[in-house]
Amino acid sequence: GNPLFRDMPTTVFEVMSQLALKHRAINLGQGFPDDRGPADVLRAAADALLDGYNQYPSMMGTPELRQAVAAHARRFYGLEVDWAREVLVTSGATEALGACLLGLIEPGDEVVLFEPMYDSYLPIVRLAGGIPRIVTLKAPDWSFTREDLERVFGPKTKALVLNNPLNPVGKVYSRAELELIGEFMRRFDAYAVCDEVYEHLVFDGARHIPLITIPGLRDRCLRVGSAGKTFSLTGWKIGYVTGVPELLQPVAKAHQFMTFTTAPNLQAGVAYGLAKEEAYFTGLAASMQAKRDRLAAGLREAGLSVLHSGGTYFLIADISSTGFDGDDVAFCLKLTEEAGVTAIPVSAFFAESPVRNFIRFCFCKQDALLDEAVARLKRYF
Amino acid sequence: GNPLFRDMPTTVFEVMSQLALKHRAINLGQGFPDDRGPADVLRAAADALLDGYNQYPSMMGTPELRQAVAAHARRFYGLEVDWAREVLVTSGATEALGACLLGLIEPGDEVVLFEPMYDSYLPIVRLAGGIPRIVTLKAPDWSFTREDLERVFGPKTKALVLNNPLNPVGKVYSRAELELIGEFMRRFDAYAVCDEVYEHLVFDGARHIPLITIPGLRDRCLRVGSAGKTFSLTGWKIGYVTGVPELLQPVAKAHQFMTFTTAPNLQAGVAYGLAKEEAYFTGLAASMQAKRDRLAAGLREAGLSVLHSGGTYFLIADISSTGFDGDDVAFCLKLTEEAGVTAIPVSAFFAESPVRNFIRFCFCKQDALLDEAVARLKRYF
Ligand SMILES: CSCCC(=O)C(=O)O
Ligand SMILES: CSCCC(=O)C(=O)O
Repeated sequence: GNPLFRDMPTTVFEVMSQLALKHRAINLGQGFPDDRGPADVLRAAADALLDGYNQYPSMMGTPELRQAVAAHARRFYGLEVDWAREVLVTSGATEALGACLLGLIEPGDEVVLFEPMYDSYLPIVRLAGGIPRIVTLKAPDWSFTREDLERVFGPKTKALVLNNPLNPVGKVYSRAELELIGEFMRRFDAYAVCDEVYEHLVFDGARHIPLITIPGLRDRCLRVGSAGKTFSLTGWKIGYVTGVPELLQPVAKAHQFMTFTTAPNLQAGVAYGLAKEEAYFTGLAASMQAKRDRLAAGLREAGLSVLHSGGTYFLIADISSTGFDGDDVAFCLKLTEEAGVTAIPVSAFFAESPVRNFIRFCFCKQDALLDEAVARLKRYF
Repeated sequence: GNPLFRDMPTTVFEVMSQLALKHRAINLGQGFPDDRGPADVLRAAADALLDGYNQYPSMMGTPELRQAVAAHARRFYGLEVDWAREVLVTSGATEALGACLLGLIEPGDEVVLFEPMYDSYLPIVRLAGGIPRIVTLKAPDWSFTREDLERVFGPKTKALVLNNPLNPVGKVYSRAELELIGEFMRRFDAYAVCDEVYEHLVFDGARHIPLITIPGLRDRCLRVGSAGKTFSLTGWKIGYVTGVPELLQPVAKAHQFMTFTTAPNLQAGVAYGLAKEEAYFTGLAASMQAKRDRLAAGLREAGLSVLHSGGTYFLIADISSTGFDGDDVAFCLKLTEEAGVTAIPVSAFFAESPVRNFIRFCFCKQDALLDEAVARLKRYF
């Protein structure tokens, strides 16, 4: 086999979920909610399945969903999007990211990445022949400086990948940070692939700012969204990419051979969902914020120190105080086996300079399950 | 953008379908049925959607569907498959083929392809850094010789791609042909990616023979199947790959970053479908065979000469006698615009030595629609 794939580890999320199953641990590892998702969205997809069309839709996605993606961008961000030429539907955000990177990057191009980062970014950049240039964000607030960008941007920079809100640490980039990134993009004539799947999971009254809305970046950004996180239906695997036609075209070609198209009934469900009233989206964020607070308080009571999380499904606990031996992976294995609670070792999100004293908990679970996990951790520590 | 994708044309199937829509032509181009699919399979998927689990399943696919794929291989081909280690579910056969080729091929590897071939094969081989070595099958029976294989196999051959039954021409490889291919695979230590999505669309009492069942090839083949063609639900995009664990592992890693996983309710529907009684599968083939015969007779009455099709959804008409000018693409555009019937120019399936006097008609349509298409062609010619 191709050594790139032969030597690639199975994703940490799958490994930890399988381990949680094996040990009957409470799985606060892989990011997925344990509720059923909005009943009306399920109903819309089921109706489309039973009454509708089950053959290939357009490879760009159904007109209905592309229109809904454009309307959603206008409603939430004041972004004007031509649905017919600027929206591509994909089989989940993973495919969207893959298609964007494969479509954009030529062998030898440099690609700026911020670590911690999602574990699919680097293999795709490598597959495309890109050369990663990594900025390591600094805990506890995951900050970076102008000098960090000066060090990684250069004449060969083709693109950057920005995940905002940031999995695994819950960082929400400020307008000033986004403007600084934009300044470098313009100076070095670079594009951005913006993984914004947690756009509706932003807390404490803050609002998500898509990088594409920063002045001067409309033509430079491919914005990736996902139904999985917005409707608590992670298994549906419906993603969407928004960008100017010139940028989107090679992405659509990569999509063409990656999956070609996506189930029309699920697209119908998501189109219905994106048109839901504002209260749905604010309610989702409020509910997740309450869960974040509940789990953070519990983890603190269990003796862990917890970092601030301003968005996503996730929060980070510092395990330095638990007397662990410096290996967060071993710690998470032990926690699954001995405490019956599964978390993700944050070192899995680093390529160059891993921190080893953080583990990630997912809080998008029923309160009773979060409470039981906390009770187990209290007993354990 | 990456020139590989920037310069890649939009797939001919999408182009012709959009053109058919625009001109309100009868679309006998892109291969998809116009019926609703089996009601019980739709019901099984809808039930799973409404009552079941909508979060990430295992990246390998749901245990239920993997078991069904293994049971199907045993029932139809006597093939023993370990569902837990030898089956991977993908978001359609397109993704399956992509993951197989990206997982298997290293830059510089040679890959044997038979043309006419499906239009996604070559771009993926190129993306993976493979060097295509092409056998051009000879009309009218799309045959090849031992000398053809001697010419393309060599010490650098890593793999071949075999589509059987063959889209677009409906060739069903004979056991002798498969054994000859197997002889070369063993001699040159090569693997095969077997696109067998039309396995249940074989006519005239013949039976599909998976390459993997030829003696000595069990460890060398990745067999790709698809629910779309087997259940007339092309929009579902559920595919599956079967192969020994050692071969499947790098494929699963490629899948991991291409889509990661696939909607569990559609997987449930397909698992249900694969367990249907034998009569479903033989009934599907019988119904398609009748449609093949209906369309072939009609096309002949319209003055076209028609080649034999032993399988798939497709048959080929020879347009030499229509006084066309040697350009099958222009011919298909004209046919859409002027006759109101859309077909696919067969030259789109060739990389090296295109034939220009064939066009492909899809016959998996309601009889009334086939008849109306024939009536239009009769008026036109
Ligand atoms: C595709 S599995 C990973 C889910 C996820 O986004 C996470 O847990 O970080
Ligand atoms: C993925 S669109 C092409 C459908 C098909 O298999 C064909 O028409 O050949």
